Amino acid sequence: MSEQLRGACIFGQSGGPTSVINASAYGVIRTALDADCITKVYGAAHGIKGVLEDKLYVMDEEDPEELRLLLHTPSSELGSCRYKIADPEKDDTDYKRILEIFKKYDVRYFFYNGGNDSMDTCSKISRYMESVGYECRVMGVPKTIDNDLFGTDHCPGFASAAKYIATSCMEINKDARVYDNGMITVIEIMGRHAGWLAGSAALATAFGSGPDLVYLPEYDFDIEKFYADVEKIYAEKGKVLIAVSEGIHYADGSFVSEAKTSATDGFGHAQLGGLAALLASLLQGRTGAKVRGIELSLLQRCGAHLASQTDIDEAFGAGKEAVEQAVKGVTGKMVAFRRDSVDGKYVCRYELIPLDSVANFEKKVPLEWINDEHNGMKQEFIDYVLPLIQGEPVLPLDHSLPRYAKLKKVLAK
Amino acid sequence: MSEQLRGACIFGQSGGPTSVINASAYGVIRTALDADCITKVYGAAHGIKGVLEDKLYVMDEEDPEELRLLLHTPSSELGSCRYKIADPEKDDTDYKRILEIFKKYDVRYFFYNGGNDSMDTCSKISRYMESVGYECRVMGVPKTIDNDLFGTDHCPGFASAAKYIATSCMEINKDARVYDNGMITVIEIMGRHAGWLAGSAALATAFGSGPDLVYLPEYDFDIEKFYADVEKIYAEKGKVLIAVSEGIHYADGSFVSEAKTSATDGFGHAQLGGLAALLASLLQGRTGAKVRGIELSLLQRCGAHLASQTDIDEAFGAGKEAVEQAVKGVTGKMVAFRRDSVDGKYVCRYELIPLDSVANFEKKVPLEWINDEHNGMKQEFIDYVLPLIQGEPVLPLDHSLPRYAKLKKVLAK
Repeated sequence: MSEQLRGACIFGQSGGPTSVINASAYGVIRTALDADCITKVYGAAHGIKGVLEDKLYVMDEEDPEELRLLLHTPSSELGSCRYKIADPEKDDTDYKRILEIFKKYDVRYFFYNGGNDSMDTCSKISRYMESVGYECRVMGVPKTIDNDLFGTDHCPGFASAAKYIATSCMEINKDARVYDNGMITVIEIMGRHAGWLAGSAALATAFGSGPDLVYLPEYDFDIEKFYADVEKIYAEKGKVLIAVSEGIHYADGSFVSEAKTSATDGFGHAQLGGLAALLASLLQGRTGAKVRGIELSLLQRCGAHLASQTDIDEAFGAGKEAVEQAVKGVTGKMVAFRRDSVDGKYVCRYELIPLDSVANFEKKVPLEWINDEHNGMKQEFIDYVLPLIQGEPVLPLDHSLPRYAKLKKVLAK
Repeated sequence: MSEQLRGACIFGQSGGPTSVINASAYGVIRTALDADCITKVYGAAHGIKGVLEDKLYVMDEEDPEELRLLLHTPSSELGSCRYKIADPEKDDTDYKRILEIFKKYDVRYFFYNGGNDSMDTCSKISRYMESVGYECRVMGVPKTIDNDLFGTDHCPGFASAAKYIATSCMEINKDARVYDNGMITVIEIMGRHAGWLAGSAALATAFGSGPDLVYLPEYDFDIEKFYADVEKIYAEKGKVLIAVSEGIHYADGSFVSEAKTSATDGFGHAQLGGLAALLASLLQGRTGAKVRGIELSLLQRCGAHLASQTDIDEAFGAGKEAVEQAVKGVTGKMVAFRRDSVDGKYVCRYELIPLDSVANFEKKVPLEWINDEHNGMKQEFIDYVLPLIQGEPVLPLDHSLPRYAKLKKVLAK
């Protein structure tokens, strides 16, 4: 477990971007640049596709100060992909090509930053390299605003999205109640199968300015119950603010928003959207209220100006840990987080879990954290999220607008 | 012009809320509480409707620290209205009632915070009180994210919305270009008749991460030219980010957003979303690209966490100035801003302009600040907006979430 392995490394980003995935990138790149046994640090353009297409940026050529700005630059600066790699037993074309590139650049370390599907990719590459006897340490760095990765207390990216959602809900709540006429507002929040993000809207309520109702995909959606919930509050207050997960679905499994589109993303998931407008329109029909549907859309996953410093630190730390452990000899693992406390204060510990224990599992919100009416969150959920969103970063600004990293992206020859 | 007039004051908020309208409220309320000749400070619930309905909150009863938090509390804390008051010559019912309330509470000062329509209300009340010989000083405090008020360099609320829009566009721009497949993203921005807000998206471009194309309502929208603009960039880069004002309209004056007939998806379902969804859907039909429509919706006008400190200071200052001038004897005026510079640095001066010169006029973006292609902004526009968005407020937070003012709102008896 502690032999020195000299060679280059490749780092890639995959899946949907987050506000802090570049903080993990910085954690990997900076630590790899500083590691004696890592001879060169490559960043793959658009994740594994950059490896397959031999498009690798030489990170050694970048200005260290610009690299540091990755800590506050949202989205995946090296580019992302949703490329689904085949099973090596069925089709090893991609793997042969990856091996060819690894050999060409003497790559002995591979770090991949993503969610479930990306850990699957990572796991397959790890197994293939082992099967052909090519020594290469493969490590996964977690990332997903959805917070649905198995085996880790939470995922980098989630907390910043949660903070964006909670803050935006607090603001919308102030705005949506300003007139003295009837008003129903529906806020649509990301999260296909797990309600971690939609649930975070309840933080706004816990702090005095949030939605009256919150619906998660963990329970089947019952539209008649939904109408009754809304109409009850509307009759009482004349204003209703509702947060819904994009992934709410009927008992038969069909998404409430499903009829809207047949488009799918690269992994074959149905593309969701338009749910807020749909529900707002249905509620208008029933109540005659003024309605508004608001989709937080991409903003919730790229709102780096509202990032949690805790999330930035942990995202960076996950990348750093992956490199340090790989250098020590670890391979085939994902860095995971374990929640701990010291003197009653939240602390995050790193753990290593096998890549194949993560891939293709989804962690949902515990049902006991959802209220009995299935339309709001219990204190346990608030207690879980709150420590993660703490801390405000000092943002690099230029004329009061964000100053993002400007990388040269010199291609390896 | 400088006689002492003793009596109570009423302050009201009207029209669409902004991130800093409560900073103006604080400017009025704090200054009025401190003014010797103002015997009591009332806040009208839902603007002029609160006066008509005798719903007045006693601001003297509020905790000074909570009042101070109004500086960072978005939306109209006292409630707003869109009540259009009749011409006193045609129907003086409302005016008689207002006079009755003014007499009941010995109101000698009336401060009204809003946009065009609110200045119209203010102007009518001022004239009526004069016509019946009731001494009352009536002052308008400007407010509108739309920045379309006549006679002032800019309006409180605009800059914070512009900063929110520019920052969000920078973030979306990072996210919307992350994959290596074709992608077209349309961002819909508020502003029915004037393009100040949509134009502010160009700040993002000026700072390196913004839309490729920006469309304002100042020029007629030509859909064929629009398709050609988008397709040209799509062919070059494979990614297009477009910012449009909600108010873009065809040469016949009809809003593009109202052309619902063509707005059906592949299944023939009507598009429930707004303009962004409509344009995205049309562009998908033509290019086959992955598309996304994003409506910034209420977020752009209530995003107090991204407020401009300059805007907060000026909003507060406008309220303060209104009270100070009224105490000195001024009436029938709105506080306006004049842009000045000292040692090359932006400075804002207060001016007083007659209420009836403001009411019902709309100030549009000068056509010479829009590029020759009518799809982007010139440097003159950037130079106009940039000084206004400067400065980051120190936000009051509670567990890293906004801490808003909590007013008691004690009703006057």
